[in-house]
Formats: sequence, C-alpha cells, structure tokens
Amino acid sequence: MPATNGMLDADDAVMLLIDHQSGLFNTVRDLPIPDLRKYAIALAKTASLLKIPVITTASVPDGPNGPLIPEIHQYAPHAVYVPRTGQINAWDNPPFVEAIEKTGRKTLIIAGTLTSVCMAFPAISAIQAGYKAYCVVDASGNWSKMATDITIARIAQAGAIPTDTFAIAAELMRTWNRPEGSRFAKILAEICPEYQCLIESYDKAQAIAKSGPETKLDKYQ
Amino acid sequence: MPATNGMLDADDAVMLLIDHQSGLFNTVRDLPIPDLRKYAIALAKTASLLKIPVITTASVPDGPNGPLIPEIHQYAPHAVYVPRTGQINAWDNPPFVEAIEKTGRKTLIIAGTLTSVCMAFPAISAIQAGYKAYCVVDASGNWSKMATDITIARIAQAGAIPTDTFAIAAELMRTWNRPEGSRFAKILAEICPEYQCLIESYDKAQAIAKSGPETKLDKYQ
Amino acid sequence: MPATNGMLDADDAVMLLIDHQSGLFNTVRDLPIPDLRKYAIALAKTASLLKIPVITTASVPDGPNGPLIPEIHQYAPHAVYVPRTGQINAWDNPPFVEAIEKTGRKTLIIAGTLTSVCMAFPAISAIQAGYKAYCVVDASGNWSKMATDITIARIAQAGAIPTDTFAIAAELMRTWNRPEGSRFAKILAEICPEYQCLIESYDKAQAIAKSGPETKLDKYQ
Amino acid sequence: MPATNGMLDADDAVMLLIDHQSGLFNTVRDLPIPDLRKYAIALAKTASLLKIPVITTASVPDGPNGPLIPEIHQYAPHAVYVPRTGQINAWDNPPFVEAIEKTGRKTLIIAGTLTSVCMAFPAISAIQAGYKAYCVVDASGNWSKMATDITIARIAQAGAIPTDTFAIAAELMRTWNRPEGSRFAKILAEICPEYQCLIESYDKAQAIAKSGPETKLDKYQ
Amino acid sequence: MPATNGMLDADDAVMLLIDHQSGLFNTVRDLPIPDLRKYAIALAKTASLLKIPVITTASVPDGPNGPLIPEIHQYAPHAVYVPRTGQINAWDNPPFVEAIEKTGRKTLIIAGTLTSVCMAFPAISAIQAGYKAYCVVDASGNWSKMATDITIARIAQAGAIPTDTFAIAAELMRTWNRPEGSRFAKILAEICPEYQCLIESYDKAQAIAKSGPETKLDKYQ
Amino acid sequence: MPATNGMLDADDAVMLLIDHQSGLFNTVRDLPIPDLRKYAIALAKTASLLKIPVITTASVPDGPNGPLIPEIHQYAPHAVYVPRTGQINAWDNPPFVEAIEKTGRKTLIIAGTLTSVCMAFPAISAIQAGYKAYCVVDASGNWSKMATDITIARIAQAGAIPTDTFAIAAELMRTWNRPEGSRFAKILAEICPEYQCLIESYDKAQAIAKSGPETKLDKYQ
Amino acid sequence: MPATNGMLDADDAVMLLIDHQSGLFNTVRDLPIPDLRKYAIALAKTASLLKIPVITTASVPDGPNGPLIPEIHQYAPHAVYVPRTGQINAWDNPPFVEAIEKTGRKTLIIAGTLTSVCMAFPAISAIQAGYKAYCVVDASGNWSKMATDITIARIAQAGAIPTDTFAIAAELMRTWNRPEGSRFAKILAEICPEYQCLIESYDKAQAIAKSGPETKLDKYQ
Amino acid sequence: MPATNGMLDADDAVMLLIDHQSGLFNTVRDLPIPDLRKYAIALAKTASLLKIPVITTASVPDGPNGPLIPEIHQYAPHAVYVPRTGQINAWDNPPFVEAIEKTGRKTLIIAGTLTSVCMAFPAISAIQAGYKAYCVVDASGNWSKMATDITIARIAQAGAIPTDTFAIAAELMRTWNRPEGSRFAKILAEICPEYQCLIESYDKAQAIAKSGPETKLDKYQ
Repeated sequence: MPATNGMLDADDAVMLLIDHQSGLFNTVRDLPIPDLRKYAIALAKTASLLKIPVITTASVPDGPNGPLIPEIHQYAPHAVYVPRTGQINAWDNPPFVEAIEKTGRKTLIIAGTLTSVCMAFPAISAIQAGYKAYCVVDASGNWSKMATDITIARIAQAGAIPTDTFAIAAELMRTWNRPEGSRFAKILAEICPEYQCLIESYDKAQAIAKSGPETKLDKYQ
Repeated sequence: MPATNGMLDADDAVMLLIDHQSGLFNTVRDLPIPDLRKYAIALAKTASLLKIPVITTASVPDGPNGPLIPEIHQYAPHAVYVPRTGQINAWDNPPFVEAIEKTGRKTLIIAGTLTSVCMAFPAISAIQAGYKAYCVVDASGNWSKMATDITIARIAQAGAIPTDTFAIAAELMRTWNRPEGSRFAKILAEICPEYQCLIESYDKAQAIAKSGPETKLDKYQ
Repeated sequence: MPATNGMLDADDAVMLLIDHQSGLFNTVRDLPIPDLRKYAIALAKTASLLKIPVITTASVPDGPNGPLIPEIHQYAPHAVYVPRTGQINAWDNPPFVEAIEKTGRKTLIIAGTLTSVCMAFPAISAIQAGYKAYCVVDASGNWSKMATDITIARIAQAGAIPTDTFAIAAELMRTWNRPEGSRFAKILAEICPEYQCLIESYDKAQAIAKSGPETKLDKYQ
Repeated sequence: MPATNGMLDADDAVMLLIDHQSGLFNTVRDLPIPDLRKYAIALAKTASLLKIPVITTASVPDGPNGPLIPEIHQYAPHAVYVPRTGQINAWDNPPFVEAIEKTGRKTLIIAGTLTSVCMAFPAISAIQAGYKAYCVVDASGNWSKMATDITIARIAQAGAIPTDTFAIAAELMRTWNRPEGSRFAKILAEICPEYQCLIESYDKAQAIAKSGPETKLDKYQ
Repeated sequence: MPATNGMLDADDAVMLLIDHQSGLFNTVRDLPIPDLRKYAIALAKTASLLKIPVITTASVPDGPNGPLIPEIHQYAPHAVYVPRTGQINAWDNPPFVEAIEKTGRKTLIIAGTLTSVCMAFPAISAIQAGYKAYCVVDASGNWSKMATDITIARIAQAGAIPTDTFAIAAELMRTWNRPEGSRFAKILAEICPEYQCLIESYDKAQAIAKSGPETKLDKYQ
Repeated sequence: MPATNGMLDADDAVMLLIDHQSGLFNTVRDLPIPDLRKYAIALAKTASLLKIPVITTASVPDGPNGPLIPEIHQYAPHAVYVPRTGQINAWDNPPFVEAIEKTGRKTLIIAGTLTSVCMAFPAISAIQAGYKAYCVVDASGNWSKMATDITIARIAQAGAIPTDTFAIAAELMRTWNRPEGSRFAKILAEICPEYQCLIESYDKAQAIAKSGPETKLDKYQ
Repeated sequence: MPATNGMLDADDAVMLLIDHQSGLFNTVRDLPIPDLRKYAIALAKTASLLKIPVITTASVPDGPNGPLIPEIHQYAPHAVYVPRTGQINAWDNPPFVEAIEKTGRKTLIIAGTLTSVCMAFPAISAIQAGYKAYCVVDASGNWSKMATDITIARIAQAGAIPTDTFAIAAELMRTWNRPEGSRFAKILAEICPEYQCLIESYDKAQAIAKSGPETKLDKYQ
Repeated sequence: MPATNGMLDADDAVMLLIDHQSGLFNTVRDLPIPDLRKYAIALAKTASLLKIPVITTASVPDGPNGPLIPEIHQYAPHAVYVPRTGQINAWDNPPFVEAIEKTGRKTLIIAGTLTSVCMAFPAISAIQAGYKAYCVVDASGNWSKMATDITIARIAQAGAIPTDTFAIAAELMRTWNRPEGSRFAKILAEICPEYQCLIESYDKAQAIAKSGPETKLDKYQ
C-alpha cells in the first residue's frame, strides 16, 4: 500500500464504541435510530474485516440506559468490553485507557451515544493525552440536532477530526483492489441503501444483456 | 387501448398552460424554479407527443410579470396563444373559453403560475361549467408552500382532481408498449433526473456485460 | 373475533404489491429508501402471517426500472407474480384483475412504487370497479414529497382509504391475544425501530429485577 | 475524583445566567421556548446541586424585555442578582465583573438570551480578560436559527467552547457514582424528556418482573 | 350560555384518553414528546374543570408499551380506567364501549397514542356506531409525520372532526367570562408556553406602571 | 364585469378581521409574524379599495392578548369595531352577528388569530347559519403548524373555503383593467415582496432602454 | 463609554453595503427577501444614527442585476456611492478601496448580495490588507442555504468575524442609556418583529394599569 | 488584471473533477441530483472558458458506481481522464498526481462525488503535499446532509478552502468587463436559474420600452 497521504493509518487505529445502548438510542433525535444502529454495526464489521482492535463500554447498562445493542459484539467478536463504575467520560475509567494503551496504537476512531457527551468527552481527553482522534459523528447519536452542530464545532476546535460512517469506512478500505473488496462493498451498501439498489439494478442489467428481455414490448420504439 | 378504468382519457383532453412567465417564476417559493420550468416543459412535450390541444395565455406579459417562457411554444408548436385583456382568471376571458369549446373536448389538464390563482381559478370555473379538471399542482408554482397546501384542499373540495407532473405524464402514456415509448421515457427522465442516472447506469452495465470490465482489480474477491 | 366495527376485514382482503423495484426505489424522495424497503417487507410478512393472498407485478423489470426487490417473494412465498406487457396502471392488465377476482375477495390493500402512479392508478380503477381499497402510502414511495401530498388528496377524493404501514399491520392484527401475537410484535418492531429498543430495554430491566445490578455505584443515592 | 482529563473543572466554575427574561423569550426562534426555559432551569438546578456560584442579571427588565423568569432564583436560591444600568454586554457593567472576580474562579459557564448578543458578547470579553468560557448555546435562545449558526462560528473562532445543556450537566456531574446521582438523573430527565419515559418504563418492567403481568393474553405465543 | 352555533356541546361530551403510555411515547416522531405529554395533561385538566367524563385505557401496559403516564389520572381523578384484554382498537373491547354508553353522551373527544391506530380506529368505529367524534391529533402522538398527515385525511373522510389541543380547550371553554376563567388561562398557558411569557410580561408591565421603573437610564430619550 | 364563474362576488362580501392582537401574534408559530402582519394589513387595504364592509373585534384586549394591531383600522378606516364580552367564538357575541346581518351580505371573508380558534369557530358557525365563508388561513396565524394543517382539513370538511392572502386579493381584484389597477399592484407587491423587486427591476430596465447603460464594460462581448 | 472589552469599536468602523440590488434579491434563497431588505435597511439606519461612514456600490446595475434598492441611500443619506466598472470583488475597484482609506478607519462592517461573493470576497481581501472585518451574513443574502453554510466556514477560516444584523446593531449600540436609546429600540423592533409586538403589548398593559380594563368579565375569577 | 487581493489566481489553477458518475449520483442526498449535475457541468464550462487544465477520474466505472456523466468531457473537451486501479483517494493513484504536477500549477479546484470521500480525501492529501485547495462542496454531492456538514468542518480544519459553485465561477471570472463576459453570464444563469428568469424579464422590459405595451388596459390607472 502507498503511504497514507495524510489519511488515517488503519494499522495504527483502535476503535472505541461507547454506550451504544438501547435506552439511550430512544433519546436520539439528530438522526433516525435505525440509521444510527446500522452505522454502529458497520463500524463493528469494518473493524472485524481489518482486524482493528475494538473496545466497547456501557454506561450503567443495568438502569434505564438499557443494554448494549447485541450486534456490536456479534459483528466484532474480537471486541473487548470494559465495564465502567459510573464514570460518564469513559476516559475517566482507568481500565478503559489501559485497554487502549495495551494496543500500542495512537489513532482512535470514536463513536458514542450521546454524541456531545459519550463521543466528545473521550475525544477531548484523548487529544490532550496525545492521541489522534477521529470522531464518527453519525455513528454516535445525539439528543438534539443543535447539540450535534455544537459538538462538531467543539471537537474541531479541540483538534479532533470529525468524520462520517461512510467516509471512515472508505478511508480504512483505501482501495477496491484488495481481497476484502466485495466484503467492503457489502458494508458500504448497508450504510447507504441507495447503493444496495444500484447493485441489484446493475446485476439485473447485466443478466438481461446476456439472456435477453422478459417484457414483450412489440410496439415500443 | 383498454377502457379508461376511471383514468383520464387522452382523447378527450385539452391542456391549459397559463401564465408561465419569467417574472412570475421569480415569485415562486413552493418548489425550485428549475423544477417548475422542467415540469411545464414536460407537459408541453407530452401534449405534442399525443397531439393533445394546448392553449396558452399570459397575464400582462408586458409588465413586471415578464414574458411567457419560450420553451412552452418551442416544445408545443401546435399550441394556441390566447391574449388576455387584464383578466386574472383566464376563464373570465371569453376567447379563452371559446378556444376550449372549439376543441369539443371536456377534460382539462390545467397548470398555471401562481397555483392558488392562475391554476385554481380557471379550474373552479371549469368545474362549474361542467368540465372535468385535472390540476397539475407542481407544474404550476406558488408564492408560498402554505398557499399550495391550502389550494390542494380548495380544489379537491371544488371537485377538481389534484395531480403531479410525473403522474399526469404516466396517466396519458398508459403503456410502455407503444410507438412513442422511448420518447415518453425521455420525458419521464427529464421530470425525474434520478431516472436519467438509472438509464445511464443501465446502459453502462449492459455494455460491460458484453465487452468486459475496464478497471483492473486483480486482488479483489 | 368481534365484528369489524368499521375496520378492515382481514378475511376479505387481498394485498397488491406493485412495482417495488430496485431502480424505481432510487427515484424515491418522499421517504428514506431503507424505510420504504422495510415497510414493503413488513406488508409481505403480515400477509404471510394471516394467509392473505398477495399479488405482485413489476413494470418492465428488464429495463432501468430494475428487478423486483427479492425480499417480497422471500417473505411472502405464497405471493403470485403477474407479469405485465407494458401497462403502467396494473389494472389495465387483464391477468392482474383476473388474479384478484379469482380470490373472491373485495377489499384491496395496495402499495406501489411510485405512489402517485403505481399505487394511485389501480386504487382509483378498483374503486370504480366496486372494490374497497386501502392505500398504504408509506409502503409505496414517490418521486417527490409534494406528489405524495397531492396523491393523498386525490385518492381520498376518489374514495380510497389512505393508511400507513404500522396502522394497516395493527388493523389486520386486531388483538395481541392471538397465537401469532409475538410474531406480530416482531413485525411492528421492524416497522418502528424505536419499538425494538423498547423491547430490548424491557427485557434487560426484567433481567436486572431478577438477577440484580451489574454496576457498582456504592456512593449513589 | 480523577484529574479533569481536559474537561471542565466544577470547582473552578462560575455560572452566568444573563437576561433570561419573559419578553425576550417571546423573540426566540431557534428553539422552542419551553425547551429554552427548561434548559435554563436545569442549569440553575445543576449549579445548586454542586454549589457552583451563579450570577444573574437582566437587561432593562422594567421595559418590554420583561422580568427575569422566576424559576432561575427559585432553583438557584444562592444566585446573586447584579442589576445593570443599560449596558447590553454584561461585561461592560463593572459590578458584574467584580462579582465574578470575587469568586476567585476562572472558568465561566455562560448562557444568555439572546445568544448572539447576551451570551456571545460577555463570552468574548471574558476570553480577552483571560477567562475560560463555556457557552451553553441551547440554554440561551436566539432570534433566528441562522444567527445561532453564525454565533457558534464566532465564539469558537474567539476561543470560547460551545456546548449544550445536556453535555454541560454531564460534564459537571462527572460520574453516576456520587451521592447526588439520583438528583442528577432527575435533571437529565427534565432536559431530555425521552429519558423520563425510559425511567418510567424501566420501573414498570421491574415491577412486572416481580409481581407478574396484568393483561390476560391467554392465546398469545 | 348561547346555543352551540355548530360548536361542540360540552354537556354532551365524553373524553377518551387511550394508550398514553411511557413506552409508546418513546416511539412518537410527529411532535416532541414533552409537548405530547403536556397536551394530554391539558385535556385531563380541562375535563376535570368542566366535569366531563373521562375514560382511559392502556394497551398491554405490562409489556414494552410501558405504564400509563401517571399525570392523566392525577389531573383527572374522576377518570375511569378500563383494562383491555389485548384488543388494539379500544372499541373492540365491550367494557370500553359500555363505559361510554353509561354516560348517555354522544359526543366523543378522542386522543390516543399512536394517532393512526389508537386514536383513529376507535374514532372510525364510533362514527359507525352513530357518535360524533372529535379527534385531538396533537394530543395523540404518532410514529411518523407522514402517518399523521395520512391519518388526518382518513378520519376526515370517515366523518370524524380533526382538531388540536388548544382549539378543543377553547371550544370547551366557550367564554372568558365564567368562574373558571383564570383556571382556563392557566391551562392555555401550559399548552402554549409563549402565552405564559406574555402573562409574566403583562404583570410586570402593570407593576412598573404602578411602582415606577427600576433601571436608571438617565441619558435615554 | 363578467359573471363570477364560481368565484367570490365582491359585492356580496363582508370581511371579518378577528383578534389580530399584539400578544396573540407572539404565540404564532405557523408563519413569520411580520408576514402575518403584512397579510392582515393587505386584507384591510383590499377591503378599503373595494369598499367591502370590514368588521373587527378583539378578545380581552386589556389582558395579555394585547391590543389590536393599529394598522387594521388605519388602513381600513371604515371598519366597525365590535367589542366582545369574553366570548371566544366571535359568533357567540350577538352584536357581532348583527353587524354582519346589517350589511345584508352573505359571503364572509374571515381571518383570525389563532387560526384554529378565532378563524375556524366563526367560520363553522357561519356555514351553519347559511353563509358562504372564505377562510384566509395565512392572514390568521396559529400556535403550531400541525394545528394549521388540522384546521384546513376541519374547515374544508365543514364546507368553508380555504384560501390564501394573495389568492383572495386576486379573486377580489378580478382584472388588471380597472381604475384601481395600480393600487392593487402595490398591495400584491406588499404581500409578495419578490414582486416588489420585479417592479423595481422592470422600471430600471425600461429606464436603461431609454437612457442607455451606466456601467462602462468596453471589453465585454 | 467603557473600553471595548474585545467588542467592535464604533468610532473605528466603516460600513460597506455592497450590491443590494433588486434583481440579485430575486436570486436569494437562504432567507426571505423581505427579511434581507429589512436587515440591510437596519444597517443603514444604525450607521446614520452613529454617523458611521457608509460606502455603497453596485454590480452592473444597468443589467439584470437591477438597481440598488432605494432605501439604502434614503436611510443613510450620508452614504457614498462608488460605481464599479465591472469588477465582481469590490476590493478590485481602486476607488472603492480609496474611499475606505479616506475614512482613516480600520474596522469594516460588510454586507453584500450574494453572501458568498459580494460579501465574502471583499472581506477576504480586507483581512489580507490588514483590516478587521465583521461580516453581517443575514444582511447579505445568498443563492442557496448550503452556500451560506460554506461561506461562514470560509470567512471564519480567513479571520473575518461572522455576525448577524441584531448582534451588530446591539454591538454598536453598546448601552440603552444613551440619547439615541429609543431610536435604537425602533431599529431593533424592525429587525425582530416579535419585539415590536412586545412593545405594543407593554404599552397597552401600562395603559390598562392606569385607566382600568375595557372588557366586562363579571363572572371571571 | 489587478493582483489577486487574496483571491484565487486562475493562472495557477487546475480543476479536479472526481467520480461524477451516474450510479454514485443516485446515492446523493444533500442536494437535488439535477443541481449537482448542473454545477459539475458549470465547472467544466468555466474551466474551458479560462483554459484551466481539467483532470477527471472515475472510481470503478464498470461496476455499480456507473459511468462518468458524459457532459463533463463534452463541455471540457481538453480535460484529461486518468483511470484508477481501485484507489478510493485519487491522490493514492500516482498517475493522477503526476498529471497535476505536469501542469506546474499549485492551486487546486476540487469537486468529487461523494463529498466526504472523493472530494475530501484528495483535498487533505493535496494540502499535505503543499498545494492550495479550493473544495467546491455543492458540485460534489454527498450521501447525507449531516456528512456534508461534518466534511465542511473537516476540510476547513485541514486548511482547505470551502466554496460553492457560484462563488468559484465568480472568483475565476473576476470582472464583467472581459471578452468572455456574456459567456460567463450564461454559466451563472445555468447555476442559478432565478438569474435566467431575470435576464428574460430584463430583455422583455427593454423591448416593451422600445416598442410599447401589448396588453390593452384602458381602464387602468
């Protein structure tokens, strides 16, 4: 592979998936809940594909915040779950930071529900601790759209890099010319369902080109 | 062709394109101006294709209302222009009604800028005069979105049928299996540009199916 | 079961799923494509659960309109596919009407992409032919939001009943106290993903009530 | 407690609640008035809980701007009110700055109606005077949404930190594992009413787990 | 009081508050949850003020739908709760209809979560059973905005009268010149919080008129 | 003038401007307040131009509802103000109905703040009393957009005709070819400010055509 | 007056009002045209009040761009108009820069239609030439909302200060306690029409406090 | 021409049009597809007019991404197409960078579909490689509006200059007083269709000024 050209280096990356919990999801108002769920799952799948370490955590999952959505660990079976003891900023929980340090990597890909709290706080702490932080804003989910607009400004000011789910997947993928190409295509089509329709139409058009049309349009010009 | 099954009968139709003028277009706020322009043109083309009589008129085109957009008569060269002498409701202008009566047809397809005036007034008058009236709301253009919502309720209450540009074109087309099929496809793709992209992608996919891929993805699975 | 109280009678119902095709989906602008796909699938599953006859059809699926999405027949394996020979209004295709007549049922549940064409036209024809027609507007998909607003007014004026995916599923379900209750719950949770989160939170809260909390919050009051 | 990890230090904080007046509230267009009111109250309660000094002020409250909403001092009885003599920027009023200096603290949490004036001006002045300033944008209220978008850019450029009500409450709370935990939960549920519903559902689910279901669904599977 | 002039007759009214449950509230997307809650409470208070019979019911409140929000019975202590045994349409539950019949009244004021199901179904059944039905759409709450637009069209078509919370309160109030005048004012101010600000500003302006200004603006002209 | 062709007859019209009060304006959320004010003024001016009787009234203008905006009587000096004694529906106030009856006219043009109360209630009462009622929805102003959508459906169902400010002015004007032509143009330009810009551009273009260009563009082709 | 506390110094300010032309106004899509017009006028009035030098210019006003709106020079009669000879960026026109230099002031308040061109280009040039530049984004007007979002980011990046009309007027006003106080109040009420309503309600409430109520509510408690 | 005054220097510019492909266009959700298409074409035409080198490339155009839209090379016949071998970031493709280097220019004008990937990645790489980069955000097209908001923040943070299609065309044009003036006017009118209407109205107004009015308004004053 070529040098990164200023892009994220997948080999230096750790993915932090913070507080993607069913209860908190029901408070999300800046994007549709199924989209948020889909994007968090896409992150988990991308990390699995590239063997990027994943660390998960949850905020008081035995209360109204609800359980971690099961798909995260289902699609990233190598993910390490680090329980917290009440801290809101996951970075305030020493075992969480230790889990990151153990990977020896210095580039963090962070998503967390709620965006302005669970994503933003660890990102700001990480920047201060010398890490590079990519914040996946639309795989996070926030309690209001205005809060998200504010958070983008805040994390950019703090030096964290704001990004979106499709972009981070593409930035990690780097090229279509790789063995995982078709599996990446599937992830991108899940993130962006218009893309799934395109694939279906494309396959059909090719099949028709080979086997001829079905519909009889004898008067059509 | 089969009986109409409750649908519009193209052979009984007259198209009224009222006050599609450049100045009035600059007051339109319920849909983007280029869309309005595109939809009005699509009506003109559809009428030409099916030889449906078209009657145009303009409201004081020598004042700030501006000239009729040139494309209407360009794409419907058979259209008859009926000047007015100041009437706001085109139906108040006897030569306009006479031009309709001369066609012997009783089903009107009406679009007019502004929707709540130039489209709605003649439609209400026509209903009272015993005509059937299809109002093409999005080929009309209104000064506010709320005014359009109100107008849909008003004309439906009065017995006129509200419809949209894509639907009226499809209702007139009836079937893909006709000599004008490909020319209808072109009109639909102009109304709905996503459709144009689909056609381009479709053609490319078929070409690839026949001639093989261009991109070398030797590591892709 | 009690009398219908003015509600839809599932035993008299036929479901018509018209032109849910990948290409057409890419022209849909009145609701997110994945929602449309989800709602169409939910209709198929609901029909299967209640053994309601399903009739599908597609408009020139060998062209840019693209193939029928595979999930419809996957989740409604008993569905009958009726090919068309170019007709835009499925009701203009005699075998389509015959397939309906063969069921002996007189209440139609109709969804079709595009809403203002593929759903609205057959609904209007069906009303004229003496059927009762429920139009599932958000399981249809339209090329513009304004076109959908217009279509709701048009079909209501024509005597068809406008409804939404959640409502039609609930209207068919009638009661939670039935053997299929839990399978209906799953369909409703797929239509409305907030509901899925609620179920997950509910199960977790009950589990905690039985097994005790996980998080140690010794200073919390 | 752990070090701040780049987060706000509650022990160094002063809260400035500026011009939350009934008349000015009626000019707010960037968020619903009851939300603004709720968020300003939440700030007052949070400050009371943590004994953070609160300074209030009002702009010509005997004119059309109207009185300070009574809830601020009701829920933050320790707040100090500093009258102004006409200055628009509260920082131009020496007694206001003196009240801040008297606390000996250097981190300001600022909310003010209107956002682009009463919040932004003192924040910019404070930054220049060497303070750290957190601007709670959605507890402020502005006369237009565009003005708020502009203000976020302006204050970020000036070095103030934009934040939202939920985030600032969470940043001050730091951890659930504290004696005030349940009182914080109540504040968060007031800021974000979805959260209140979650708590109610959670309690009900636990009660059911203990006492059994109410509804008789004998045919349900 | 004067004759009703075509308006609702409070003495013939029964209020049906159906399925206002915490879990279902978390699925509401057509209006903010706290608004919905506020409007449902306002209905309860209005009924109490006028001694209008209130009947409540809940759909499987021991499952994920969650408990009835406590405020309904708190503010309408005379309300009668009728449990259901799984029916989705409350009208399918004989004790519910019997409770209505027992009042001897024929005008129903209906609100229910979800709007397109729990409000719309009983309204349609009631119309068929010969009742007059007022549907309070914004005190109901629906899973999507499009579903609400559809439902307004459906119930209007069925003969039910669509209305909003402020309008129904005002229609029941009839006149400010009644002993309950000030208590109605309080309810209206809770429905519409701008109104609360107006009251506060009004009182302050009157106080200033009596006691003189506070702010010293000696240079002001 | 020609017969009305189903349009409003200005000679049979009375205009009712109900409760356009400063306080109530501050509760309006379905359109910008200055637009509402502008539209109410445009109605007053149109009535003055055509000598249409105008009846105004206000709801408790000595309380928080505030005073009638002064422009109504300023621009319609012939308007008759009918005080109320607390009635919410102006039709419940006998002197108000008597004032209408005294004109001997049977077509009402109604605008009132709030739309769903002050406009809708008298309209429904008037229809029942045998009048024809045009409701000018956007010259009314409502407390929520959803309430306005609901109200349009309600009044249409009741038989009142929903319309907008521009449409009613144009419907009353009938033709440009009348002595008041230029004064109508001025009113329309105030309703729709894009129109004012068009007039200015038009005048400038004509001036340039006569006197030659100002800007020296010697290299321009 | 106190030192500026980081705020704009009115005594060092020049106001540049660039290309506020009727034709260009008709291309504005990021805010309503009457608002734009109102805000530009408010800037002119504010400059007159404080005797801030104003420089205007227009882009090819003898072509479709249309004439400068007349109100600018009407309300800022001291404004100097500098014709251009085709330059798009007014800073490329030497007489324009010379006019600024002649004032000896170094702080520019800039508004221009279109925002992303006529406001942004001179601002960027001015920053490079060593000036301080305040960009009044909502007194400018742009051809799309997205273009405005982009422009805010661009000018902030370049070092110009983004602000809004209400904020700049308030920043220039500094205090209510000045001889021009009531004239500023009038300008602010024109910018923000809710404020005008508040003033009217306030005056009425005070009058009532002095002279007693008008409405007879003898049964009201 | 004058010095650039901090503006883009057309003589140092290269235009990069990346991945404007029919399939990808069908995934665009942040602006209407026909607008995107129009803006990309406008860039191609502008580059042709000024003889700015254009480099195009496409991402796997033989798959579902679809073909490059034909208009780019049609309107910029001098454009050089550089095929890729799977790289997502065009900068990772050495021949692409070499093509840029060969021009000897250091200022890049970049548009690419999707914005957050195909536009943003090469821009970030270019900045790191020492280039100046102008990102034309609305000639790019993105899969979600939120992703575009995030991308504007990201590229601004990285030092690239965000701009829009109209602004970049105007910045390259510099002055109306140039031989290409009228051809630029045509491009601007295609970008902003309101401008086309203005031109038509302007021409008509001038014609009327010369030849007299058409409409007979003998009673008009």
